Amino acid sequence: MGERGSGRAYEAWLSYSQRGGDVQIPNPYRQCFEHIVVAEETDIVHSAVEELKHAISGILGHMPTVTSVLDTPCAIVLGTTESLSKLGGWIQDEEAGKLTDEGYLMKTVETEGKLIIAGRSDRGVLYGTFHFIRRLCMNEDLSRLNMVENPANELRMINQWDNMDGSIERGYAGRSIFYDQNRFTADEQRIRDYARLLASTSINAIAINNVNVHERETKLITAEDLPDVARLAGIFRDYGIRLFLSINFASPIQLDGIDTADPLDPRVREWWKRRAAEIYAHIPDFGGFLVKADSEHRPGPFTYGRDHADGANMLAEALEPYGGLVIWRCFVYNCMQDWRDRSTDRAKAAFDHFQPLDGRFHSNVMLQVKNGPMDFQVREPVSPLFGALKKTNEVLELQITQEYTGQQRHLCYLIPQWKEVLAFDTYARWKGSTVDQIVSGKLFGRPHGGIAAVSNIGNDENWTGHLLAQANLFGFGRLAWDPRLSSEQITDEWVRMTFGEDTETRSIISCLLLQSWRTYEDYTAPLGVGWMVNPDHHYGPNVDGYEYSRWGTYHFADRDGIGVDRTVKTGTGYTAQYYEPNASMYESPESCPDELLLFFHHVPYTHPLKSGKTVIQHIYDTHFEGAEKAEQMISEWTKLKGKIDHDRFEHVLKRLIEQADHAKEWRDIINAYFYRKSGIPDRKGRTIYSF
Amino acid sequence: MGERGSGRAYEAWLSYSQRGGDVQIPNPYRQCFEHIVVAEETDIVHSAVEELKHAISGILGHMPTVTSVLDTPCAIVLGTTESLSKLGGWIQDEEAGKLTDEGYLMKTVETEGKLIIAGRSDRGVLYGTFHFIRRLCMNEDLSRLNMVENPANELRMINQWDNMDGSIERGYAGRSIFYDQNRFTADEQRIRDYARLLASTSINAIAINNVNVHERETKLITAEDLPDVARLAGIFRDYGIRLFLSINFASPIQLDGIDTADPLDPRVREWWKRRAAEIYAHIPDFGGFLVKADSEHRPGPFTYGRDHADGANMLAEALEPYGGLVIWRCFVYNCMQDWRDRSTDRAKAAFDHFQPLDGRFHSNVMLQVKNGPMDFQVREPVSPLFGALKKTNEVLELQITQEYTGQQRHLCYLIPQWKEVLAFDTYARWKGSTVDQIVSGKLFGRPHGGIAAVSNIGNDENWTGHLLAQANLFGFGRLAWDPRLSSEQITDEWVRMTFGEDTETRSIISCLLLQSWRTYEDYTAPLGVGWMVNPDHHYGPNVDGYEYSRWGTYHFADRDGIGVDRTVKTGTGYTAQYYEPNASMYESPESCPDELLLFFHHVPYTHPLKSGKTVIQHIYDTHFEGAEKAEQMISEWTKLKGKIDHDRFEHVLKRLIEQADHAKEWRDIINAYFYRKSGIPDRKGRTIYSF
Repeated sequence: MGERGSGRAYEAWLSYSQRGGDVQIPNPYRQCFEHIVVAEETDIVHSAVEELKHAISGILGHMPTVTSVLDTPCAIVLGTTESLSKLGGWIQDEEAGKLTDEGYLMKTVETEGKLIIAGRSDRGVLYGTFHFIRRLCMNEDLSRLNMVENPANELRMINQWDNMDGSIERGYAGRSIFYDQNRFTADEQRIRDYARLLASTSINAIAINNVNVHERETKLITAEDLPDVARLAGIFRDYGIRLFLSINFASPIQLDGIDTADPLDPRVREWWKRRAAEIYAHIPDFGGFLVKADSEHRPGPFTYGRDHADGANMLAEALEPYGGLVIWRCFVYNCMQDWRDRSTDRAKAAFDHFQPLDGRFHSNVMLQVKNGPMDFQVREPVSPLFGALKKTNEVLELQITQEYTGQQRHLCYLIPQWKEVLAFDTYARWKGSTVDQIVSGKLFGRPHGGIAAVSNIGNDENWTGHLLAQANLFGFGRLAWDPRLSSEQITDEWVRMTFGEDTETRSIISCLLLQSWRTYEDYTAPLGVGWMVNPDHHYGPNVDGYEYSRWGTYHFADRDGIGVDRTVKTGTGYTAQYYEPNASMYESPESCPDELLLFFHHVPYTHPLKSGKTVIQHIYDTHFEGAEKAEQMISEWTKLKGKIDHDRFEHVLKRLIEQADHAKEWRDIINAYFYRKSGIPDRKGRTIYSF
Repeated sequence: MGERGSGRAYEAWLSYSQRGGDVQIPNPYRQCFEHIVVAEETDIVHSAVEELKHAISGILGHMPTVTSVLDTPCAIVLGTTESLSKLGGWIQDEEAGKLTDEGYLMKTVETEGKLIIAGRSDRGVLYGTFHFIRRLCMNEDLSRLNMVENPANELRMINQWDNMDGSIERGYAGRSIFYDQNRFTADEQRIRDYARLLASTSINAIAINNVNVHERETKLITAEDLPDVARLAGIFRDYGIRLFLSINFASPIQLDGIDTADPLDPRVREWWKRRAAEIYAHIPDFGGFLVKADSEHRPGPFTYGRDHADGANMLAEALEPYGGLVIWRCFVYNCMQDWRDRSTDRAKAAFDHFQPLDGRFHSNVMLQVKNGPMDFQVREPVSPLFGALKKTNEVLELQITQEYTGQQRHLCYLIPQWKEVLAFDTYARWKGSTVDQIVSGKLFGRPHGGIAAVSNIGNDENWTGHLLAQANLFGFGRLAWDPRLSSEQITDEWVRMTFGEDTETRSIISCLLLQSWRTYEDYTAPLGVGWMVNPDHHYGPNVDGYEYSRWGTYHFADRDGIGVDRTVKTGTGYTAQYYEPNASMYESPESCPDELLLFFHHVPYTHPLKSGKTVIQHIYDTHFEGAEKAEQMISEWTKLKGKIDHDRFEHVLKRLIEQADHAKEWRDIINAYFYRKSGIPDRKGRTIYSF
């Protein structure tokens, strides 16, 4: 249970005390670090001050004084814009006016020897402080601090898929830090440290239990558990993070023996209102409910002949008086499909279910949509639901935990994937209707919006199983704050915060991270077709693993070709769910991007790609090359021996060796499968283990 | 836990009280059933008498008197031949001389109005009594009773794969009747009833724990558990059944912290001797040890550079003073094979491991060999180890529990399969060197021999999950006693004992049973190739489920053909493990029987079978027909509505419906898989769900 590594692995990217030699602060600014002036200390500002003290003492080796009065010539001054205005005239009204609720500004007032960190709210102060510390670690020029930052997204959320028995659905880094044996864990420091890590990247919301709400977890909204939930909410509150709960739609039945959970039944509506009142009595700033309903055997409004809008609105009304939100997941499809049924296409399900409901949802309902239409595969198109809902709040759901992407035994850095999703142009209103514009609420002027992601942490000492998987958690938060940050920027920040300023170290690790997604894609399922994994646990190659199953996840490979025809002309018609010109682009195999070809089209193995290669040769080449790249990662990493501490070096090395070995298994099984089926030899004559 | 059915389901084939109207006994023999005379009552004879009383009162509605003196004109007289000689001169020395230790004779002494049941030993009396009851139920002519029966096999054994946590490895009928939550269960009546069922078919040995001996079960040979084990041994002893334990070869390490389990280490040898002494102090007639060693990660002598003979002999020496046996399993192979390695053939492993050791084993060691070289597939050749060991005791291992044959959700009556195994001519000495002659010890004059099988029972009310699966348990015992009984005879006995004398009922159920194995084979893996099941749980179709695995279980299907080349000429050389003419018969695809073709040969889909069909058309035909036959079983069974009690009727009907549905799933997946690969259409144009 949990591996014990070095303290550095636990401290993750907030490992200040290890940074001694790295960070240089020239005078006169060095003096500023002797004193922190805080205008007005709320709990959140207190967290910011503590973090700053911790960082300064770790990095510079001395503990700054903290005062609320300005009695030194040089100082770091922090507080809300309002509280700072009482101390000095450093911030102009025009500057302050640029800040939204969680925004902050940082500036150097050289003449007065002050470094100013000011937030519109205390959360802004906290985010500004973490940003300031990041700049400090990255040796940025303090003489020129002058920036205003506002979050692109209101909601920046983490979904924990933790169960109260301590297991984590799709968890690959030990057991839950929140629960064990159906009770709350006692280790509050661990939870506080998690809150710090999240807040440092700007996360401001967390749902603390699995969206599949089992019997025990159903009780989280009752008097029995609410004191404990409130205790957790208090820890997260200190870091500006609102707590949400995943709820069981059938709670009135299960908890109070009411004979229905019909959202239009007055008893049910009243029940949820009373429940909301009780929750808010314990947690005045409770975030709201996260709901998986009528999906994969979870209960929902369908049982009563109602629809998702009826279900979500009923809950929304209960939460509305308190400012609570309902986050309703759109991961709804027929999970009992007959593989022989060729008329059903799982990819179409979310759109078919939710698009017709546009405009029916209350303003405090948000629909949470997975990035792709299937389920977090290494490559999928962007879900056509983005932009299809114009009068509905949307939240993008990403998966940090690497369910289908190597389960934190493989390095697969997902920021480049998420960047593609966020930058995808849906053309919902005009050219430039990118996903990030939609989920932020900007494109359609929605009151709420944001990004959520499934956490990848557990009680492993290093949080994420694979140390380098910490980068996915860090990067998610940074992207949620600012989707326009480049992968390279985010990567550079994380690598430097985690491993310091050595140039070769930075360069090697950044390259490893940035190439890893493509490498993983290369040696796994080709050209967007997905799903060639072992059923249930989803680890390792199994080409037909989901081919004759009830999950709607097929590749249709035969001796002549492979892929799913989702065209309007001859297939399932899925392409019609996109706006033009995307619909046409995907409809035609000529214009469909290579990497999604098999998602949209069934083609012969001899079909030529834009690269000039045939599909079959592409499969062989990417698998041989992918496995080779996995092997090369080991030699790249080995160059860092002696440059980073022994524990972290050996830990990552071990994982990379496992990955390279498993990549060969992937290569050989995929190649053998397709050679046996197609009979077409590799043009380069490499070894394929055919019969 | 466990389904509750009617009492009949629980009583299985000993359901006397339900037989009222069925059984007719003409005078003068009716009077004999008023009185039972017992010469000398041992515990086992007591069991026989109780059973006979129970049967008579159930069937005839009156309770017979039991005396030890001959004071009535008509009576059933039972006892050992020796004890009976004191009562009357009914048995000639010549007759008595025909009996072996467990043999019995039955005769009608018409002049004296006596029905005699006499055994050489008290166990013979018990078996004779059960046989007498069977004849009674089957309305046989009591005026002509005159038979001598001796068992063909000394050892007739059941292997329970029960774990002490209450689970059963490969159990499909509820949880263990022996254990729950790492303790012995309290329900001794259930165990006693199981002993009755077993004894009624002649079973005389049982190993009460899983051959995979985990940590908890390792302790069964210690003072902590031996009193409980002895209690169970006592229950089975009353029914003539000796108790065995599966042991952990590493016990000296795990139980007493000795630093080795090396079979040649004096401390280890001494340790096992002390252990044997303690076991026999608790259980004087303890049967011995069943051992799975150096197989599937179980510990064994290989760790110490020793071989199986060293390991088995060391245990044999410890048990020898007490008459105990070591039953050493030959299911040994490399279970970490690389699927890319084409030089290893799992089918060869048991022979390669054990044949060279022939002559090295002590006389109280028996090698237990699975019927086929792989693992209880629906169709395999007979293991070439039978007959290859001439100076070694061999036990045939069969699997009653339907791991690969439908898991008691499908009807698959295995007696016809076992009959083929037992009748297989190995030519080890001469024509007629059948497996039954080898394992009985007759062919090579071995002191010990027999048949063992893995049980299919659990705590379900009807014992076996599927009621009709009781027939496999019954039939196994009957075959172990007399391998020359025909499938039809055994089936008729079971059907009549279980369902009575109605002609149509007998005919329908017998047909269902006798056709079911072939039907199951038809809609599952074709032509002996096996293994097309879902990994781990082994239920349901998955053609590539084991194709790229480490288990050595491949079919090598590509776009041109399928099958495993095990010939000497071009393949793994497995055929050479057989004697001539079998070796040559299997070596050539022309002479290899169709049903094993793909086990021995890789052939094109267009290869013509002896039936005139191509391989691919055979696959299509058998799968369409097999699924159709499964469907027809429902209508056949439905004819019995009203003829058998509601509970049993509905229970079987439900299972048959499930089977027919699942058979279609098998049909469609197998056909789709091969059509996609071969591209060859069904000649009859039936529906195949290709891409």
